Amino acid sequence: MNIKVPTLIIDQKAVNGNIERMLRKAEISNAIFRPHFKTHQLAEVGELFRHLGISRITVSSVSMAAYFAEQGWNDITIAFPVNLLEIDDINQLASKVRLNILVESLYTALIMSNKITQRIGVYLKIDAGYNRTGLTPNDTEIGRIIQLLGSSNQLIFKGFLSHAGNTYAAKSRIDIMSIMDENKMILNKLKQEYIYQYPDIVISYGDTPSCSLADNYSGFDEIRPGNFAYYDVMQYHIGSCSLDEIAVAIACPVVAIHPERNELVIYGGAVHLSKEFIIADNTTRLYGYVVNLSDSGWSKPIPGAFVSSLSQEHGIIRMLDKDLKRYKPGDIIGVLPVHSCLAANMLRSNYQIINN
Amino acid sequence: MNIKVPTLIIDQKAVNGNIERMLRKAEISNAIFRPHFKTHQLAEVGELFRHLGISRITVSSVSMAAYFAEQGWNDITIAFPVNLLEIDDINQLASKVRLNILVESLYTALIMSNKITQRIGVYLKIDAGYNRTGLTPNDTEIGRIIQLLGSSNQLIFKGFLSHAGNTYAAKSRIDIMSIMDENKMILNKLKQEYIYQYPDIVISYGDTPSCSLADNYSGFDEIRPGNFAYYDVMQYHIGSCSLDEIAVAIACPVVAIHPERNELVIYGGAVHLSKEFIIADNTTRLYGYVVNLSDSGWSKPIPGAFVSSLSQEHGIIRMLDKDLKRYKPGDIIGVLPVHSCLAANMLRSNYQIINN
Repeated sequence: MNIKVPTLIIDQKAVNGNIERMLRKAEISNAIFRPHFKTHQLAEVGELFRHLGISRITVSSVSMAAYFAEQGWNDITIAFPVNLLEIDDINQLASKVRLNILVESLYTALIMSNKITQRIGVYLKIDAGYNRTGLTPNDTEIGRIIQLLGSSNQLIFKGFLSHAGNTYAAKSRIDIMSIMDENKMILNKLKQEYIYQYPDIVISYGDTPSCSLADNYSGFDEIRPGNFAYYDVMQYHIGSCSLDEIAVAIACPVVAIHPERNELVIYGGAVHLSKEFIIADNTTRLYGYVVNLSDSGWSKPIPGAFVSSLSQEHGIIRMLDKDLKRYKPGDIIGVLPVHSCLAANMLRSNYQIINN
Repeated sequence: MNIKVPTLIIDQKAVNGNIERMLRKAEISNAIFRPHFKTHQLAEVGELFRHLGISRITVSSVSMAAYFAEQGWNDITIAFPVNLLEIDDINQLASKVRLNILVESLYTALIMSNKITQRIGVYLKIDAGYNRTGLTPNDTEIGRIIQLLGSSNQLIFKGFLSHAGNTYAAKSRIDIMSIMDENKMILNKLKQEYIYQYPDIVISYGDTPSCSLADNYSGFDEIRPGNFAYYDVMQYHIGSCSLDEIAVAIACPVVAIHPERNELVIYGGAVHLSKEFIIADNTTRLYGYVVNLSDSGWSKPIPGAFVSSLSQEHGIIRMLDKDLKRYKPGDIIGVLPVHSCLAANMLRSNYQIINN
């Protein structure tokens, strides 16, 4: 590794393992696997998916869809409430690739039906309990939107879609599985209501915690997890992954050592790791685990060591005396990020793929 | 304003006002004004400073120094413990511009003295109570580093530098001023110790809260605040600025409205605003104030409205019923960021300057 500045290290072997495990469960469940590419946002990582036979993807913005369309991906769902200000870009994109968008209000659907000039798939975003976006399952607008789509030549009603973001706050495997079941029940009920009129509709579900913990995805037509490609400390804390399955670390130069307070200062701050944290030991903010890097990957987290605070460019690592002694300015140390999506977003132009 | 996606709006008039106020206080104090450019990281905003006569700047990374050097800035302090892995880049840069770096250990100074091939200014970073980086004022390494610098042909001992990052956690104007006084005392004591041997050394101090609240900077030779150019909600909460002095807002498309829970969903998430928050009302996380935008700027914050949570691309705004009614998907709404440095870093390629 030739590292000078904070750099995202992507372990290709680990990524492949993560993809394969999820893909296999999708295959045995006869569910479409449409991974969310917002986590990595990288053409090269996209190729790892393609190599394993994946051809349908999810993204979270029109610009991300355009980026992957340029990389040859031609079946893309933008899993974000459609941004009416980007209708021109959406039309342009839909003239080139198979595009699906999300609507969650009659108002938006009406405007879309007037302004969309290309054939485009439309999912109704359903709020199955996360309470971020989506139509509640019994909302009377659902029927009216579907009716509107039925009368449109361009907007094709594709089905119902939910995101179980509430699994991130769940306290146990049982809680996570019950959120997944709730989504399954809600989406299937809607599907049953419309399947006779629209025999091709699908129900699409996604989130990394439940898709990681579930043995299979039966009852869903499609799954859209994203974070699982890299995983991170947050997912490890939720229980979605083992430490070995975390597929990215941020390599950071050591710039100072402060034995008097058991601290090591790294070049690696909020603009590299993001300010996402978890609460460890009930009160302590933890911004990342600390590992030793080698050319072939990284060690288990160093016991007792963690990123304890972040400024714009600085990170502070707290570490036991006996470990602190091993480092000096000019060394490189690794950080397992709390939220890999946010770290990867900031290090999109500064990454290295290893074990490839 | 032609906005389609989350965009940083920079109010040039407000930025100029912020610069002028700080500059005037530096002038009456006979202190060098070396603003920190890490907040904006933009050539165009740099020009506003240049236009007001500023020629010396601070940055927080070698790459940022290289960027501004290309923009014609030729007196640059990299206010970050020197990264030994970038010595080649530092040498290259120092061959083109007047460059100052920070050391905070004899170990680093020794390596620098062996590897630096260009004349370069060296500040000793002093920890005056923030406890992030720096030598404690009574550290015996200070004398040994200065001795080492004295024997080097390339490394020029420039003086002592501190950053009072602890003002961010201060609870009152009095606390902030007493942190500033503490820094002043510590740095001056060190200066007195070495001024006879090194008559040109200066003491350099920086942070936005104290430089904003102080009437003048007497007792310091140089000040290096950065955030003040834009300010933000955090600075407003600390008391460093008025609401009118906040010079940036993030324009965000409205994508969904949820009256049933008083929420509005924006395209504008953690990858645009950062996950920095303040705690409002003792328990609530607040990720930004909400304003109405116009071509000439923005309104006062909408009472009772705030950004209550952020996902990667989504932001959730909580808002009173009566206000929520005024918005529909496709509108643009403004967010005053909690931490403008982090938001500006992520929106470097997506900004508009108004009132110019």
